Formats: sequence, structure tokens, C-alpha cells
Amino acid sequence: MVNHMLLPKAYKTTVEEDYWHLRQHVQIWDVSCQRQVQIEGPCAEELVQLMTPRNISKAKVGDCFYLPIIDGNAGLINDPVMIKLSNNKFWLSIADSDVLLYATGLALGRGLDVTVSEPDVSPLAIQGPKAEDLMADIFGNHIRDIGFFKYDWVSFEGTKQLIARSGYSRQGGFEIYLNGSHLGSALWDRIWEAGQRFDIKPGCPNLIERIEGGLLSYGNEMTRDNNPFEIGLAKFCSFEDDVNYLGKAALSRIAQQGVEREIRGVLFDGDPCPTCATPWSVMVDEVEVGKITSAIWSPRLKGNVGQALILLNFAEGGQKVTVKVSDGTTRNGTICLLPFD
Amino acid sequence: MVNHMLLPKAYKTTVEEDYWHLRQHVQIWDVSCQRQVQIEGPCAEELVQLMTPRNISKAKVGDCFYLPIIDGNAGLINDPVMIKLSNNKFWLSIADSDVLLYATGLALGRGLDVTVSEPDVSPLAIQGPKAEDLMADIFGNHIRDIGFFKYDWVSFEGTKQLIARSGYSRQGGFEIYLNGSHLGSALWDRIWEAGQRFDIKPGCPNLIERIEGGLLSYGNEMTRDNNPFEIGLAKFCSFEDDVNYLGKAALSRIAQQGVEREIRGVLFDGDPCPTCATPWSVMVDEVEVGKITSAIWSPRLKGNVGQALILLNFAEGGQKVTVKVSDGTTRNGTICLLPFD
Repeated sequence: MVNHMLLPKAYKTTVEEDYWHLRQHVQIWDVSCQRQVQIEGPCAEELVQLMTPRNISKAKVGDCFYLPIIDGNAGLINDPVMIKLSNNKFWLSIADSDVLLYATGLALGRGLDVTVSEPDVSPLAIQGPKAEDLMADIFGNHIRDIGFFKYDWVSFEGTKQLIARSGYSRQGGFEIYLNGSHLGSALWDRIWEAGQRFDIKPGCPNLIERIEGGLLSYGNEMTRDNNPFEIGLAKFCSFEDDVNYLGKAALSRIAQQGVEREIRGVLFDGDPCPTCATPWSVMVDEVEVGKITSAIWSPRLKGNVGQALILLNFAEGGQKVTVKVSDGTTRNGTICLLPFD
Repeated sequence: MVNHMLLPKAYKTTVEEDYWHLRQHVQIWDVSCQRQVQIEGPCAEELVQLMTPRNISKAKVGDCFYLPIIDGNAGLINDPVMIKLSNNKFWLSIADSDVLLYATGLALGRGLDVTVSEPDVSPLAIQGPKAEDLMADIFGNHIRDIGFFKYDWVSFEGTKQLIARSGYSRQGGFEIYLNGSHLGSALWDRIWEAGQRFDIKPGCPNLIERIEGGLLSYGNEMTRDNNPFEIGLAKFCSFEDDVNYLGKAALSRIAQQGVEREIRGVLFDGDPCPTCATPWSVMVDEVEVGKITSAIWSPRLKGNVGQALILLNFAEGGQKVTVKVSDGTTRNGTICLLPFD
């Protein structure tokens, strides 16, 4: 369940089979749970900027910007992708927390001249090394010219649809922001048919690939107890004078004082680990130096891979640790930078 | 799934068996998904008032107030129960939408001196005609003096816990707002043991009882497309000068112009109806006059009961209608006022 919607995850296959397939071919993912928060009106840019430390005045129409959204204490509320549709109209393609009501509250509290709404837009992701060939086959070669985190438009059944080079994997690909859910089945079928010669399969964000690739998950690696600096988002934090956002004072203090913990990878041994439902302690000697929040067996690295916030003193690559896994075992592990190679 | 938590619903029994039991005995419900939004600080009352048309200056410490929360267009965002803990501290015990981030956004946007947080409080409901005897048995006779929608305190394992005479049924009972989730199993076991001689059973909000009783469900009978007047909450809408809330202008217009639709019961014939997953049309001649949003077979009334927003011209009790049920059948029905008798 993501944003009050089901995310289809299982198609008569295993996470491991999906992983190998995603790295070699192309997959179609129903990620319509990535809801859009539409912010439109004369104060739209002001409202979006209020929510994020990233300087969005640098975004042009046609850009997708990955944005940390923070609260007054610089705690992370969400990490959406912003789509700049026009100077007065933005979509935030959100992770799993209710930005719609947060943005509504902010706009009402501030008295901003904007409309905050959830349009009938359902993203569909096409991911994997053959995604570009497949998309070009269907929509024409111009989609090859779309840069990373840029978008363009394609025609489908008499409508214009937004297509971005983005997606929640490191294998390359696109997301179609389908406007009009009644077109969902037709779009799926069209791609499915054309995808046959590329060995297309249905899929979903793959846990092995995401952890290896260093992609973080809101609600797991980051919550409101974390700030952007802890999870490697310093490059998206602007302190320029004319960038006005909530939590700027708190974030400045953090920038000056530094953080205690940072996100890292942990490679650890033993049998394939169980699902990490509650965080697992990462230990050095008898001291807890961090917690693993996501983990899985990597068939490629032939070890378990996890993501964890680690105390800086113990966060250098190569640091030896032990991991207390929820099955009662203690595993030997090593800290590494993300992504895993 | 309610407020990002699972609501336990099935205990090896049927909704119908639970219904009869709830009306005769006592049930224990894990409704910890009713999360608390805690609003504390010098501007706490100002922030809560901003969110609701109900005049909360009339609430005393010890009161529970049912509150519609509305947006700038008077659309319903939630319908929580407010607990006034002190003049500067309130809990909103929420229905299924994210008031935490809405209140956070409002407070930040308005620059109010409050802290908005989610405390470790997990409500447990004790519902049914024997609830009072059971609670008195465990916590003492003073709980008999707690008035409807009032609260008091009880001692449990060295802690003080809030107990209110409230709950999502019409059979009477209490809700314990357990502060400290580590005490959950001990509290459950204590009530379970003492409840044996009252024929206690585990349960959850009962769909038959709720529909018959005219209790509405956020996300079903009301969404942001509805206003308080449509769903019978006019008595909670204040237009006094010193009551300041968002959406007041929009709500005043609605009060003056009147609404087109109002919530009603529909009693309809035929076999026990399926689950109402998407709204069913209510017809008079060939015209749609409303939509049923919740429905179920009532073994007591020996008919199907539903709740629907009905065009006012067709909303009088006794109005004959037909219902287009999702199983393809058309049923004969009659409009009635809520609750069903």
C-alpha cells in the first residue's frame, strides 16, 4: 500500500528473477501510486520553494527536479520528483506520505494564491536497458533525445502525454505520466504488445536493484527524524539569500555543525537474510553504530546488501561490523559507500 | 489499512455473528489506527479552531468534541474526535486521512507557536451494553460517572490512562487512549480476563451496526467533495464573529444557498448485497438521484441497508427508489432518515 493505493508487486516470479531480467531487458511497472500533487496559480513557485531547500528557480519548463521536502526542523516529509509544467504549474510526483494535505495546509496558512489538487495522472514506468528502443518503437525516435530527468510529450490515442527519462531503478528508462486513467489498459496493452520482441515482463521497483543502486525509500531510510545531510542530499540544499523555505534556519545549523550519521551500504555474510521489517543493529565491538533499514540477498554480489545510517566515526569504507539479524543470527559485514558496485 | 496501520477485522467469525454479539454483550476492539494528532503550545486552540467550523471555545478540559475539519472550499478533510487535555494541549483522534501533515503545514504557513506531533497513544475500544459493567469491574465505579463524550483518568500498571465514553458504535462503551504501546498486550489481557464473565469477544467496527446506526465513514460517505451540511453536521457549524476558521466564507455561502443533496438511508430488497466497492446508483424513474457508498445485508431488518447522498427533491422518508447493485441486479428500495430503526 503506497499513498492509499495498492502497488502491484508479484507476477508469478521471484525478486531474484525480476532482478536479472530488469538488468538485461525491459519491464513495465504500474506505479500509479506515485500520485501527483498539482500546484497551480500565481504563487505556485513560491509554495513549492517554501517546501524544499533545493533552489527551484533554476528549473526550466521540461525539467524534472528531485526534491527533498522538509519541515520546520529540517526533518524529511517526502522526496518527490518535481515536474515543471509551466511557470505557474508544477507536479510533485510523491513518495509514500501525504504531501497533498501538507501543501494544502501550507497554502491556506500562508494565504497563497494557488490551487492544490490531485489530478487523474497515473505514472507507468518502463525500465531496463531496452526501454529506450521500445519507447522509440512506439512513440518515435524523438524520445531518444530526452535527457536524464527531462521530459517531453508523446501522442497516444488522440491525447498528449508526458514522458520523462526517470524511474526508480539504475537501469535507465522512462516514466509516462498518463493523464486519464481510462486510458490505462490501452497504454499497457500497446506497450505490452510492442514489448514482446524486447522480452518485456511486468515488474515493480526491485528491492535488490534498489538497495545495490543506493536508491533510498521514504519511510525506510528516511523519515521526519532524518535530515537531508544524513542521507546524502547536501547537494540539493541551497542557502542562497533569495531561496526562501521552511526549516532553513534548522538546516543551516545542521550544515554548520555537521551530522552524526550518514547513509551507507553494509555488505554482510551468511544465508540469505529475511525481510528487514524492523531495523537491525549494526555493531562495532559491543557498540551500536547504526541500524539497517532495508536489506536483501544479492545474487550478483553473493552476499546480503543493506542500507543503514552509520555513525560517522565508523562510516568509512572497509569498516568491519557485525549485524544482528532478526532471525537471531549475528553476521559479519563491511561498510561501503553507496551505490554498491 | 487505516492511517498507514492495519485494523484487525476478522476473528474467525462473521460480520453477522459479530453484529448480534455487539448488541448483546461486550467487545474489545484494537483501534490503535485511530492515531492522535497532538497540538500543543500557546497557539494550540487557535490552530484547532482554524481547522473546524465547530466553536471549540465551548470545550472544557474533560470534553470530547466531534469535529468536522474542512478546507478552504468547506470540503471535508477529516472528522476526528477532539480531546481537550488542557487549555494548551489537544488531541485529534483522526479518521482515515493525514491530519498530521495538514496541521503541520497550517501551523508552519501561519507561523503559529505550536508543536504538532503524533504521540505513542493507541486507542482501545470497549463497546456493547456490558461495557460499563466490565470497565467498572476493572477500573472502579467512578467510570460510571463519565458522561457521553466526556473523559476521565484510570490507573493501569502505575500509569494514568485516559478513558472516554465514546466509540464507533451505537451500543455504548468506552475508548481507552493507551499512552505507551508497550502496555498494549497487558491492557488487552487484563480486559480479556475480566471480560470472560461478560462473554467478551474481540471485534472491530461492525459494518451492519454502523450503517444502521447512521455512523458515517470518512472516505466513503464523505470526502473533500462533500461539505458538513450535506452529511448532517450543520449543528457543528458556527458562524459567530469570533470563531475564525478556514473555509468560513465558503461554508456561509453553502448555509445561505442550501445544499442539493443530503445523507439518507436506503432500505432495499433482494438477496444479501455484495460489498459496495464503488458507489451504486440510486434511481427514481430513469433519473439518478444519488449514490450508495456503503451497504450490507441487515439480518435484523431482513433487508439490505445502505447510506447515500440523495438529491433533496427525492430525499423524503418513504420515497420509492431502485438501486443498481454491482452484481447486475436492480433492487426496489425506500429512502429513510438515519439512523435506521
